[in-house]
Amino acid sequence: MGTGIRGARLLVVAATHGNERNAAWLLEQWSRRPELLASADLPLELVIGNPAAYAENRRYLDRDLNRSFVPSLLADPARQEREIQRARELLAAHGPEGQAPCAVAVDLHSTTSAMGNSLVVYGRRPADLALAAGIQARIGLPVYLHEADAAQTGFLVERWPAGLVIEVGPVPQGLITARIARQSQLALEAACATLAAARDRSLRLPAGLTVHVHHGSLDLPREAAAEGPGQRPSATLHPQRQGRDWWPLAPGDPLFWSPDGGVQVFDPAAAAAVEARPDPGARWPVFINEAAYGEKGIALSLTHRERLVCEPAWGEALTALMAA
Amino acid sequence: MGTGIRGARLLVVAATHGNERNAAWLLEQWSRRPELLASADLPLELVIGNPAAYAENRRYLDRDLNRSFVPSLLADPARQEREIQRARELLAAHGPEGQAPCAVAVDLHSTTSAMGNSLVVYGRRPADLALAAGIQARIGLPVYLHEADAAQTGFLVERWPAGLVIEVGPVPQGLITARIARQSQLALEAACATLAAARDRSLRLPAGLTVHVHHGSLDLPREAAAEGPGQRPSATLHPQRQGRDWWPLAPGDPLFWSPDGGVQVFDPAAAAAVEARPDPGARWPVFINEAAYGEKGIALSLTHRERLVCEPAWGEALTALMAA
Repeated sequence: MGTGIRGARLLVVAATHGNERNAAWLLEQWSRRPELLASADLPLELVIGNPAAYAENRRYLDRDLNRSFVPSLLADPARQEREIQRARELLAAHGPEGQAPCAVAVDLHSTTSAMGNSLVVYGRRPADLALAAGIQARIGLPVYLHEADAAQTGFLVERWPAGLVIEVGPVPQGLITARIARQSQLALEAACATLAAARDRSLRLPAGLTVHVHHGSLDLPREAAAEGPGQRPSATLHPQRQGRDWWPLAPGDPLFWSPDGGVQVFDPAAAAAVEARPDPGARWPVFINEAAYGEKGIALSLTHRERLVCEPAWGEALTALMAA
Repeated sequence: MGTGIRGARLLVVAATHGNERNAAWLLEQWSRRPELLASADLPLELVIGNPAAYAENRRYLDRDLNRSFVPSLLADPARQEREIQRARELLAAHGPEGQAPCAVAVDLHSTTSAMGNSLVVYGRRPADLALAAGIQARIGLPVYLHEADAAQTGFLVERWPAGLVIEVGPVPQGLITARIARQSQLALEAACATLAAARDRSLRLPAGLTVHVHHGSLDLPREAAAEGPGQRPSATLHPQRQGRDWWPLAPGDPLFWSPDGGVQVFDPAAAAAVEARPDPGARWPVFINEAAYGEKGIALSLTHRERLVCEPAWGEALTALMAA
């Protein structure tokens, strides 16, 4: 028996990238039939992140909305790209100081990479880690902890007091499949259950949280001496690496494949230039061959696996937000 | 030992749809390093079908180029969409009456459907069937014989004396993978070997050609009373049907899945309205959940399997084109 809608608001965003359509399709159905989503009686704001790009089935129109939540950009009146305007709109409507303020944001994404059902957390805010730990304890999702990456900033959820991305794949852009839709919903429901426990002051975190910590990204080999996403790639992912997100990458493993049959193996010395840690130990690649990352010069990102001890302060931070 | 480039020209087109990038990536490499493609010494014209859409990583700009080769459209000076202009350009350059005329066109496509490595033939021109039979005899590809579909016309290869589509999937739009690239190349090389045999008057066809003959397409269930691609789908492919291209579909098989858990099974009576044959026997679906076909109102196409006896006239027609 539900006790009625109560607690702090949860912002649920889909189609922050307009060609990631599974969650957006669900969200439209939940809007009309709320009983289809097990929301644990949380008050929800269900929002299409980038409606203009969604209408055109494109990732974005002027710039990536999920790299546009940079405070200095948002504050600069000279910046009028459509995605920056949309970021301001979302904050005005549902930001912590907005008209219908939300305490937490969950941003639903999909990827062409074989990430499975997974979470992306930005930095180490205690409330974010509590939410990720609660979801991982419920349904065991792997977590990509994105930090210390100066080239990729301005993520939506960073502008809310707490929040994370649910990232599901592999699925082509622009395509809806039952599996990806179902996985997205299961992860969101685990988030709702965790947030409701915090609201009810009954959140119990597991002993630890396993995370995969970003420490660098590798680009494809490119043709010209002047490298960068503008140049055509001379190779693609090796078939033994394609689809192997969350599998360890060892020195000497096949990494790239060229149409002339050439194979380039993983060389830690060559990767050292992009790695934030001098000796990360085993490397666990994520976002292998994500279609939208070609323009960012990312063929895959490298992580190392860490087991964090869940601290009481994490749960307290999330409870303070939700039970307020 | 090669005997030098000779015989009629073969037109090889990639990126007729600008977001199908595997073959286009290969084609650029073959242009610079012809030895990477086993072309059997055929004179080739390697062409990016829709360079403007390719540059934007979109299927098309104004309209689908591969539905624009309709003689009445091409002849109408009032029609100036960019893809119609491009179709005229391709015919002026490499059409049978063009500046560098090509006898045969092979058009390299990819799909988000699990078509594997496959061929699409339009109608039953003898030379096309000879080419398909030669490829099938060499590497065993399944053939989708598209005919009697008034809603889908104007395919590029129909404007050349012979030609077919090589269709490879599943792969997301905009993504290059080693597997899809390799499959595309193997199919094209089998086409070149078949055409070279015709050129050399040594073409021997197998006894028969197995084809899957189009007889109708099904749309997703849609929300509003006014159906059509403009309305949001209320269901997607059932997970037991997703990825099952070339598997038979029987009455009562799960077909569509709704987020409320609803399952719609295949009902031949409901399909009869779109089927060209009153009793097709077993139905073999193709192009299941192709991302680009949502706008065309196609969730999958239904075929029946036929075994055609290879006729001597087929080989004679292809030989007449290639050995001329």
